[in-house]
Amino acid sequence: MNITHAYAAQDAKSKLAPFEYKPRELRPHDVQIEVLFCGVCHSDLHQARNEWKNTIFPVVPGHEIVGRVTAVGNQTHKYQVGDLVGVGCLVDSCRSCPSCQEGLEQYCENGFVGTYNGQDRETGDITYGGYSTSITVTEDFVLKVPENLDLAGVAPLLCAGITTYSPLRHWNVGPGQKVGIVGLGGLGHMGVKIAHAMGAKVVLFTTSPSKVEDGKRLGADEVVISKDADQMAQHTNSFDFILNTVAAQHDLNPFINLLKRDGTMTLVGVPEHDHPAPQVVNMIFKRRSIAGSLIGGIAETQEMLDFCGKHNIISDIEMINMNQINEAYERMLKSDVKYRFVIDIDSLRKEANA
Amino acid sequence: MNITHAYAAQDAKSKLAPFEYKPRELRPHDVQIEVLFCGVCHSDLHQARNEWKNTIFPVVPGHEIVGRVTAVGNQTHKYQVGDLVGVGCLVDSCRSCPSCQEGLEQYCENGFVGTYNGQDRETGDITYGGYSTSITVTEDFVLKVPENLDLAGVAPLLCAGITTYSPLRHWNVGPGQKVGIVGLGGLGHMGVKIAHAMGAKVVLFTTSPSKVEDGKRLGADEVVISKDADQMAQHTNSFDFILNTVAAQHDLNPFINLLKRDGTMTLVGVPEHDHPAPQVVNMIFKRRSIAGSLIGGIAETQEMLDFCGKHNIISDIEMINMNQINEAYERMLKSDVKYRFVIDIDSLRKEANA
Repeated sequence: MNITHAYAAQDAKSKLAPFEYKPRELRPHDVQIEVLFCGVCHSDLHQARNEWKNTIFPVVPGHEIVGRVTAVGNQTHKYQVGDLVGVGCLVDSCRSCPSCQEGLEQYCENGFVGTYNGQDRETGDITYGGYSTSITVTEDFVLKVPENLDLAGVAPLLCAGITTYSPLRHWNVGPGQKVGIVGLGGLGHMGVKIAHAMGAKVVLFTTSPSKVEDGKRLGADEVVISKDADQMAQHTNSFDFILNTVAAQHDLNPFINLLKRDGTMTLVGVPEHDHPAPQVVNMIFKRRSIAGSLIGGIAETQEMLDFCGKHNIISDIEMINMNQINEAYERMLKSDVKYRFVIDIDSLRKEANA
Repeated sequence: MNITHAYAAQDAKSKLAPFEYKPRELRPHDVQIEVLFCGVCHSDLHQARNEWKNTIFPVVPGHEIVGRVTAVGNQTHKYQVGDLVGVGCLVDSCRSCPSCQEGLEQYCENGFVGTYNGQDRETGDITYGGYSTSITVTEDFVLKVPENLDLAGVAPLLCAGITTYSPLRHWNVGPGQKVGIVGLGGLGHMGVKIAHAMGAKVVLFTTSPSKVEDGKRLGADEVVISKDADQMAQHTNSFDFILNTVAAQHDLNPFINLLKRDGTMTLVGVPEHDHPAPQVVNMIFKRRSIAGSLIGGIAETQEMLDFCGKHNIISDIEMINMNQINEAYERMLKSDVKYRFVIDIDSLRKEANA
């Protein structure tokens, strides 16, 4: 396999289009992976359009990757050819800073290497992501994928899954607790499933009455329309933890008021413009906290995959072919997806070979 | 003692002036206290001027009270006549909600009874505070005062002391940690002293170069001028905990950036207008938290007093006579006090008997 077929954006204004590149030479600890499925994360769109002002073009997005090992380096011990594996948002980190030493590579003090638009620590080359027929990643950043799950639905676990699992675990969500999930999108629907599997009482907050039924199907014990002040008031001071997955700018205060004393609301979405200022008095009078959380480390991502294998959790997806990606981006902008697009990378192989 | 002499505000626009009231009948668990010293908290001014829109007039402020027991109810076991005692911001609570059961009466789910402008749970009468010759409080809300400390300097511990001690304890400040204290006022100067005594490396943030020397005298290992971006940048990602005592509206982001991964900045000042919105991305990329904290519970207040007794910590004060209170308020508005006014209540007794 001397050429990798991919889809890339050539600049911020161009649509994603076919692109080819030469994969890196297999290093001693490398795992070469035939990509089977790749989830479509909102970050992919932000990066393809340079909305975070740090994109290096051409960019090949995709960090929700599931595939099979096709080759390994001569010192690779963790994986062998044929293994079912996953790759998430990180493909390397400094491995020596306190965060890396604690297995929290996502907070690497020297900056982790992103799966795409990152810079290879050995060559300085820009990394290309999972909208590709193949990807090569050092073994320590490759995850084992449980064999019992539907593979296409596993792909979004590598970003949407771990981004919600990590804060739920860090803030010790479990039985006997009442947990809120704000927003029912790619992240939110994973949050509902995972918090439910962790044994918490789960309340979903959505602005859309049309999502009530689906929220319950996914595992919410109750669905609250967050624009309805009366519904909200019934939950005042009652939540141990709220996971807020909404990236759009919104008022945090109505949710802060729902936290118990010592409760925390953790934000995992980065808004384009910051949310209005939280009312300090509401935090002080109940010792409440607002926090942020970023994806998860490698060990925790493996733990999450194992947890999902055990509890039979996958993402609800809409499968697309690679050449439908631009249309998928437009629908994603309208939140018109239940709840994650996943690219069938076989469609890219077929297209490349046609 | 059938009449208590006090100073009260009769309405939001009036200055504080002499006022008399009949103290409550001694109840079985009551402790009657001859007030010796009362600290002057910024809340006193807010309440006297009805700036929080909840003042019931006439109001007798004062919740940093030190005195001696002059009588006890027939079922009072904790105190006897002659004991040196203190009263802080609370004089009662429901005692049955989860927060009260956990000794966190300041977060009483049914609302604690404030030392002044509160409502007595038995009679419904409005409570009068420490700008008084005497106060009567149920024994469970009375604190023992260490005999080794200067009494006037102890008074501010009952609010400024516990308001800073409680979050420092709750967020486990101790040796090996780097702790920031934002603001060098009544609260901040106590925060510096207490964090230092807890064994942390203490960095004081102030906007006033004139306060550098005093910050170090009080126990800060380093003083940073928070308006100086270069000085601030040297401390990026280095703080375990920051206690922010500034009530004036200000940008939290420069301080958030100084927190390590998993660091928390806790706010104890209620701004008139909320601080500008924190940048969510700065919280997410280091799993940082912003929290609030309110005074402290009774058990923790006793722990704080014992800690201060052991470490010989009192507030730096300027002593005033009762009739200087209005002038003191004006100076407090200009932050012209190092670092807390304390009223010598003997001056009130003399004035009343003149």
